[in-house]
Amino acid sequence: MIAGEGTAAVRTARRVRFDDARIEMSHGAGGKASRRLVEGLIAPAFANPILAALSDAATFSLGDRRVATTADGYVVRPLRFPGGSIGELAVNGTLNDLAVSGARPRALMATFVLEAGLAADMLRAEVAAMAGAAERACVAIVGGDTKVVEHGFCDGMYVTTFGLGEVEGDTTLDPRSVRPGDRVLLSGPIGDHGITILLARGELEIESSLRSDTRPVWPFVEALLRACGDGVRWMRDPTRGGVATALNELVRENELAVVLDEASIPLRSQVRGACELLGLDPLHIANEGQFLALLAPERADAALALVRSMPGGEEAALIGEVRDEPARTVLCVTPYGGTRTIDMLVGDPLPRIC
Amino acid sequence: MIAGEGTAAVRTARRVRFDDARIEMSHGAGGKASRRLVEGLIAPAFANPILAALSDAATFSLGDRRVATTADGYVVRPLRFPGGSIGELAVNGTLNDLAVSGARPRALMATFVLEAGLAADMLRAEVAAMAGAAERACVAIVGGDTKVVEHGFCDGMYVTTFGLGEVEGDTTLDPRSVRPGDRVLLSGPIGDHGITILLARGELEIESSLRSDTRPVWPFVEALLRACGDGVRWMRDPTRGGVATALNELVRENELAVVLDEASIPLRSQVRGACELLGLDPLHIANEGQFLALLAPERADAALALVRSMPGGEEAALIGEVRDEPARTVLCVTPYGGTRTIDMLVGDPLPRIC
Repeated sequence: MIAGEGTAAVRTARRVRFDDARIEMSHGAGGKASRRLVEGLIAPAFANPILAALSDAATFSLGDRRVATTADGYVVRPLRFPGGSIGELAVNGTLNDLAVSGARPRALMATFVLEAGLAADMLRAEVAAMAGAAERACVAIVGGDTKVVEHGFCDGMYVTTFGLGEVEGDTTLDPRSVRPGDRVLLSGPIGDHGITILLARGELEIESSLRSDTRPVWPFVEALLRACGDGVRWMRDPTRGGVATALNELVRENELAVVLDEASIPLRSQVRGACELLGLDPLHIANEGQFLALLAPERADAALALVRSMPGGEEAALIGEVRDEPARTVLCVTPYGGTRTIDMLVGDPLPRIC
Repeated sequence: MIAGEGTAAVRTARRVRFDDARIEMSHGAGGKASRRLVEGLIAPAFANPILAALSDAATFSLGDRRVATTADGYVVRPLRFPGGSIGELAVNGTLNDLAVSGARPRALMATFVLEAGLAADMLRAEVAAMAGAAERACVAIVGGDTKVVEHGFCDGMYVTTFGLGEVEGDTTLDPRSVRPGDRVLLSGPIGDHGITILLARGELEIESSLRSDTRPVWPFVEALLRACGDGVRWMRDPTRGGVATALNELVRENELAVVLDEASIPLRSQVRGACELLGLDPLHIANEGQFLALLAPERADAALALVRSMPGGEEAALIGEVRDEPARTVLCVTPYGGTRTIDMLVGDPLPRIC
């Protein structure tokens, strides 16, 4: 056994029962059903002091270093979409899980499940996309594995990536370090990835210039940690389940409240329009290149200025703050002065977006 | 970038072209076609000094430690079979890739792709199997990820596991350290896993008590490394592609020859019978709980006695030796005194055995 940090996952896992008879799409959507599956079925079986099933990465000591490890499976459909593809997503997504744990990436591994009949050029393109994304992040893909299944299974390819990173200095990003008065920084417009995937499937007849936001967030994280130190309390990349789910997970851990100012949340008109058409809340839509940072109040303005000064960070905003009640709740103040409760994602309105 | 060891994979990768238009089952079988795919398409794109696509694990330095990482996807069909299941296989297989790299396991991660409609009890059983296998190996499963795909894809579940280990002391297990005269130790009977899977599918109407050999090999590896030090030159667990493919990979790296004594190779009559019926060579059949160790000649008898003294090692044997020619060749001397060349696995006679 290795010296562990963070027992929150195990503590939480004891509370939940999973009584469903069958696996459904919603169990993979990243929202409430996913959490029930993980907390009620998987985490109790694997329970150990460093289990990080409910965190983006597991961190532990190895010799004189603190390392973070993370693993993610990718089953996005279609394989290629405006702004990215499964390979780029698989590299950036895993790098981002390390990044929001305060870890500089050191090595990646990748496994492929390929469908018999897949065009070799399709695989070649995804391997190239992965290599490019890894190179841009200055990290090596050091190994992996390839399996092939019969035609008709796995629609093209599934990719799983594993990342190993080194936690910078004495960084700790713990939900329990968040305090009332802390501010919520969001790095840019939400929902671009999820809505891009939806439109790429042709399920809505909308012409759009929207592109996935897939990108590595480490450059922002590194700059924030250097400038603000432990003024950065906690970070998360709001992927499946969106900003709403990420913040609900936070308040479940620390028993606090987050109050968002809806008018301040960056959102493109195309995403707003598609969400209105479909009855979706943009706060539930997946992002693949944004991050949330919970900041000590005295550091918030400087942090915002810093992120905005970096390429791709121009639309960052402070979108809310932490309060001590109502505990375990995320609220949103609308532009008309009303207040609504923001729950975790329920069901799976946009299956297989990553 | 991290300080790397082993550039063999990159060096080899430059030799091969992959011109196939489509992915076929044989590209996942672990034999010649798999190697062409990895060497000709994947490795060149990811090329870097520590790429270990052709090794069982990547090893590199991290602070004051040497670590090994490995990743494997599992798509075995059926999910449960005599002697094991996909979950147990996924844990033992990844632990064994670390073990034959001389690495004590420190952490595992697991990702699942689940099919909508899968019985929750099936998942529960596999999660329990994984937890049990990890606990027996004294290693924690520290995190993972779960995705769900529509009914009809991924026939039940695919599991990917990642392992992180610490290389013991100053162990180096390099194919290029093997010398003419070195002996080949095999830990036990071959082919049990592959033939068990075949029979479990009901493709042959044979009643059999055969069971998969899935198990962790680290206890043997640890004992051998302690007793024989650098008298252990190289190790490999002969999974997909079997003993024949593992030894062919060795002689490709070190430009030597291996000569096997067929009569000395442990083999159960049931495996022999099934192979005769199907026209398969047991040397090509997958194992999930055996290992090959290349040993300095003066250490070989003591190593054999040690492995045989351990539970589950009783049937270990010295099955051949290394010669300096014919280079890049594996030969087998038959009980009748003839000699045949043993090639890598070609095609995919037993698809999806792991």
